[in-house]
Amino acid sequence: MSSATQFLHINKPFTFKKGGVLTSFTLAYETWGKLNADHSNAVLILTGLSPSAHVASSKADPSPGWWEPMVGHGSPIDTDRFFVISVNSLGSCKGSSGPASENPQTGKPYRLNFPELCVEDIAATAQILVEHLGIKQLCTMVGPSMGGMSALSYLQHNPTGARHFLTISSAPHSEPFSIAIRSLQRELLVSDPAWNEGNYDEEHWPENGMRMARKMGMLSYRSAEEWSIRFGRREQDYFPTEIFGMNYEVESYLEAAARRFIHSFDPCSYLYLSRAMDWFNVADGYSDLPTALAGIQLKSACVLGVETDILFPVQQQKAIANALSDNGVDTCFTNLESLMGHDAFLVDYDHFNPHIVAYFNRVWDEDGLAG
Amino acid sequence: MSSATQFLHINKPFTFKKGGVLTSFTLAYETWGKLNADHSNAVLILTGLSPSAHVASSKADPSPGWWEPMVGHGSPIDTDRFFVISVNSLGSCKGSSGPASENPQTGKPYRLNFPELCVEDIAATAQILVEHLGIKQLCTMVGPSMGGMSALSYLQHNPTGARHFLTISSAPHSEPFSIAIRSLQRELLVSDPAWNEGNYDEEHWPENGMRMARKMGMLSYRSAEEWSIRFGRREQDYFPTEIFGMNYEVESYLEAAARRFIHSFDPCSYLYLSRAMDWFNVADGYSDLPTALAGIQLKSACVLGVETDILFPVQQQKAIANALSDNGVDTCFTNLESLMGHDAFLVDYDHFNPHIVAYFNRVWDEDGLAG
Repeated sequence: MSSATQFLHINKPFTFKKGGVLTSFTLAYETWGKLNADHSNAVLILTGLSPSAHVASSKADPSPGWWEPMVGHGSPIDTDRFFVISVNSLGSCKGSSGPASENPQTGKPYRLNFPELCVEDIAATAQILVEHLGIKQLCTMVGPSMGGMSALSYLQHNPTGARHFLTISSAPHSEPFSIAIRSLQRELLVSDPAWNEGNYDEEHWPENGMRMARKMGMLSYRSAEEWSIRFGRREQDYFPTEIFGMNYEVESYLEAAARRFIHSFDPCSYLYLSRAMDWFNVADGYSDLPTALAGIQLKSACVLGVETDILFPVQQQKAIANALSDNGVDTCFTNLESLMGHDAFLVDYDHFNPHIVAYFNRVWDEDGLAG
Repeated sequence: MSSATQFLHINKPFTFKKGGVLTSFTLAYETWGKLNADHSNAVLILTGLSPSAHVASSKADPSPGWWEPMVGHGSPIDTDRFFVISVNSLGSCKGSSGPASENPQTGKPYRLNFPELCVEDIAATAQILVEHLGIKQLCTMVGPSMGGMSALSYLQHNPTGARHFLTISSAPHSEPFSIAIRSLQRELLVSDPAWNEGNYDEEHWPENGMRMARKMGMLSYRSAEEWSIRFGRREQDYFPTEIFGMNYEVESYLEAAARRFIHSFDPCSYLYLSRAMDWFNVADGYSDLPTALAGIQLKSACVLGVETDILFPVQQQKAIANALSDNGVDTCFTNLESLMGHDAFLVDYDHFNPHIVAYFNRVWDEDGLAG
């Protein structure tokens, strides 16, 4: 946990969308900048599957955050102007209650006793945090990847929850290709004998399952074009010793990336969050997406997608933009020509920054936040 | 094996590209139609990773082949006009010598004692078969997927080997994205304890590894767009009983497809052929692709690719077409707008047939085969 992490402990029951109940729960969050007098400059960042609330460094924690170049003094999301909040998703393992947290009734981790989790539950608990911080309406909601799903749910259930909305490489629902990828990832994980139906411990950790699932994920996070340029057919600089071992640089890159992830994320949290994404469809119970988003009272929206994203393809960004636009929201949509695929927002600042700088300047001006 | 399968037993040593030797070997093949008097109407079909030589039905074996609508009386590759040959790839398990074949020195399957296999070895042995059949020059070489790699190697080593060339959804080399997919598939297979370094048997078969590898393959064989239309977010009609079990139709589709494959292909053959594709680069040792293909004396080439193919992307088809064209070969290139991804040539006959009909009509006319 970051030393900048704050905790909100709620000692009231929370009922999950699918019916499960936690009698109490915790949300881990961080903030940057200052909330202004009329509480009108708050920006909430909801995260993708694996990040913590440590979006950027601060005095309390100078270590770089997962979106370091995007948030800070003079950055595109400028903490001299905005009060920025990020919350670790409910169900994650970075300080908020999740399957890896201690179940107060048993003194052991919840694991599979954690209630079935939906994206809607992540959104609902994020809203509890925002209200706790004394904010009636966010200036801007920011949601990349799974965070964009949480953001859509947040706004659907709280139509005046934000005046502006920046969604990046996200989706109004999971399409079968992304479901298939995540389903196979989960299967790889639960097939590891060390998974043991959630009864793993540090000595018996489903390392192989996590490693394979992460490699599989990497295939969907970047693009073939990027790898062709980055790795080509370069071979490894050591001879593989295993039967059918690795020959090419791209293989050792994936192996190294996967090994870094193995112990940095709880396997059970991974399964819960992955499944929550599959289940998500903001239009469930509505005739179509515009109808599902019809009540949302935004002043503006900025929808950014990436041409080479195969996990949250750009057509899904276009669908979000069209639905908001149909409902009269002043919406701009940009299809970025980045080669970095789904992960572009985490690595390709050259393509993203101009759009995010422009959007937050617009928000600043439109809301008259300069005073 | 098909009852139409013929066998060529070669009792001379064959030396593999990487140095291994078989003292004798067998090639399984099938033929359709009649070789004409001057042996000028032969068409050789080299296959993708998993198919047998049973391309189409015949009197000897009326069961449908893997390219049934493409080859036969009055079909796009018309067996009333052409003498069509298909050979099971060396290293496969459908009648030709491979890791699953009996090693005459031990009386047991070769398994990992089978020599390291390259695409070049598949091509070289296919040429031995063609010569055995009394054919000095093929009328047309046909290579879809891995078969296109074998075909390029065949022509590179035998520049007058064919007058015409139809290549479909193939590649002059493996790009890192496809290497990454195949590498992970192999890892899934060899991680199955039942793999047991090749010492599996019918009772101890790496079912789980094969199942996972095949599911992973399916993700690369079709397209996200196709699945969105075909499955959408439809749920399964039965409730999942396993923890984190399947919820959606796309998941049960993949499961069923993978289960059909598990026992239909030898795990060791799968590993050998998969690795051979990674290793393939027809331009190895040359300054570039046009130089690598410079000697090839084709009268014409037809290069077909599919817009939605993520495994053998259309840019690779374009590269083959450009290289042949640069060398003066009369080449047509078509980027088909099929939604069926890499597998389109096996399922989307509506898009493929007109081009293949037109090409073989052209070949028939240009070569004056009507007599």
